[in-house]
Amino acid sequence: MSTVSAYAATSATEPLSKTTIERREVGPHDVAFDIHFAGICHSDIHTVRGEWGPVTYPMVPGHEIAGIVTEVGSEVSKFSVGDRVGVGCFVDSCRECEFCLAGEEQYCDNPGMVGTYNGIGPDGKPTQGGYSGAIVVDENYVLSIPEAIGLEEAAPLLCAGITTYSPLRHWNTGPGSRVAVIGLGGLGHLAVKLAVAMGAEVTVLSQSLKKMEDGLRLGASEYYATSDRETFKKLKGSFDLILNTVSANLDMGDYLGLLTLDGTLVELGMPEHAMQVPPGALIFGRRRLAGSLIGGIAETQEMLDFCAEHKVAPEIEVIEPDYVNEAYERVVASDVRYRFVIDTASLR
Amino acid sequence: MSTVSAYAATSATEPLSKTTIERREVGPHDVAFDIHFAGICHSDIHTVRGEWGPVTYPMVPGHEIAGIVTEVGSEVSKFSVGDRVGVGCFVDSCRECEFCLAGEEQYCDNPGMVGTYNGIGPDGKPTQGGYSGAIVVDENYVLSIPEAIGLEEAAPLLCAGITTYSPLRHWNTGPGSRVAVIGLGGLGHLAVKLAVAMGAEVTVLSQSLKKMEDGLRLGASEYYATSDRETFKKLKGSFDLILNTVSANLDMGDYLGLLTLDGTLVELGMPEHAMQVPPGALIFGRRRLAGSLIGGIAETQEMLDFCAEHKVAPEIEVIEPDYVNEAYERVVASDVRYRFVIDTASLR
Repeated sequence: MSTVSAYAATSATEPLSKTTIERREVGPHDVAFDIHFAGICHSDIHTVRGEWGPVTYPMVPGHEIAGIVTEVGSEVSKFSVGDRVGVGCFVDSCRECEFCLAGEEQYCDNPGMVGTYNGIGPDGKPTQGGYSGAIVVDENYVLSIPEAIGLEEAAPLLCAGITTYSPLRHWNTGPGSRVAVIGLGGLGHLAVKLAVAMGAEVTVLSQSLKKMEDGLRLGASEYYATSDRETFKKLKGSFDLILNTVSANLDMGDYLGLLTLDGTLVELGMPEHAMQVPPGALIFGRRRLAGSLIGGIAETQEMLDFCAEHKVAPEIEVIEPDYVNEAYERVVASDVRYRFVIDTASLR
Repeated sequence: MSTVSAYAATSATEPLSKTTIERREVGPHDVAFDIHFAGICHSDIHTVRGEWGPVTYPMVPGHEIAGIVTEVGSEVSKFSVGDRVGVGCFVDSCRECEFCLAGEEQYCDNPGMVGTYNGIGPDGKPTQGGYSGAIVVDENYVLSIPEAIGLEEAAPLLCAGITTYSPLRHWNTGPGSRVAVIGLGGLGHLAVKLAVAMGAEVTVLSQSLKKMEDGLRLGASEYYATSDRETFKKLKGSFDLILNTVSANLDMGDYLGLLTLDGTLVELGMPEHAMQVPPGALIFGRRRLAGSLIGGIAETQEMLDFCAEHKVAPEIEVIEPDYVNEAYERVVASDVRYRFVIDTASLR
């Protein structure tokens, strides 16, 4: 075992504070790596604050993790010391169920993927995430980060990137696709970049026009304010695919009406309440409402390679670890363009 | 113009009563036919009672219509006198929009398909449906009924049949598909027969086990009561496709949980209130909730031919026209196995 500095939540209401945690012995299939950067995802905040269920405190958040390999187990074949690697939202799964075997480990149901934090590791202890100096993860759940992507930029790709890449791919986004992205935040800005890189015509649907300049710079061809009722009239029936990156409860009738025949609206965020879906909004137009959860390991690697090839990277603000509590407030206030990434040097 | 007997609603609350209506002159592209049978669809009742929007009374319901051609217009090429024909839920559409051109006339948005009743016909007058002795319809909206299907059996196929056939086809039902049908009524019993004929393994999800014997006789391999909480535990993640033929507001979280990864639940009925959809039920499992509306003319013909080939027919109770009000009460009480069909001989 080794000891490493980290920022941990000690309760649902206290600020995160610096502490030390233990990382397990490097087993035969494990990769140990120094964490260089860790992204801050809104999910971290929901989890820390107990909004998504029970938490075992102290708990170190962080599931957008990038760094450099320092040690590999005797049986490790995929990685060597010095490799640039990353870890996303999960660090293990059953490896036997039909979903794991299909490379869709995120949907493992036996009993489910092991979260990078607030899960139970193979040693029976709670898993601890990326706001720390180092981590030990089974090689099958470690990603390889291409040279073309900075480690600080790779971090947010491991959750925000794959969360948007996977549904774009699943719903066959390509040249000719008409894609709308609801919300221009951490997920939304990557959704725009990825969809544009896939050749789609992309429209941003944002509450106001405040970030319009950014949206167009990122490659969107249109940008509309959803606070304006005219938007829903003008864009009726316009899109093949809508990615909803906003966790607020929206008027689903309005948004489903923006889809063309056989179009799909995919929920990526997790609104607090059940969505109110008028059945007619689905029936007239054979429209679909779907959900999508991050992506499997193979698809996450594919996404990283795609980003390297197409020069897709998140827009980030790199912060020191002691800024994390203020960063949380700013994330909740949507005051970040577009992802905070913690430089974990001082935790190593 | 010609005059024909019919049963019409004169208000949202009065019983239907016998009257006479006029049918338009047979135009060059029109087919006139004697109506032999007309099915009673729950939609007729919703419309008559003003539950689905404004109605122009008097109004003759009926959009499951089968009969024999008596006259054809000078330009008609598809039908001849004596042909066995049918008409479903619509009698015209714009013929120019992308949906009409794609043979999906039911999704016409310019401004929309012309309903078989309570629409506005080419003569500017309200369209009147099938509870009558004869009708005049443009040949492009008339179906050919194969010899192998009795006219009384063909009638319910023109709405209940295509409403279930179309989503089964769209979601690629075939050997190996695991399909569940919610509700064993007019739509549900045809959904079971059609899915079985396509080679799927079919499960009925009904409130109670009252109709279980019927369900298994129709070809379902399993039959479960949804009033039993165990059903939702036992069948979790079991289906590729669920067709919901029930208009009541169900617990969508429960039902979506029965889908496997990438499975789809298709709404065919129209519940009164918005559906409450827990986002997690879609996100965990990349599940989809969709709607589907009848089918286009070409697909309706394909469905009739499929039914002829696979000997699929509805289970019906043939009634006299003067029984229609009592039949309505029984439909509302789910007391019909499984479709009332009016023998319209006395209206000719």
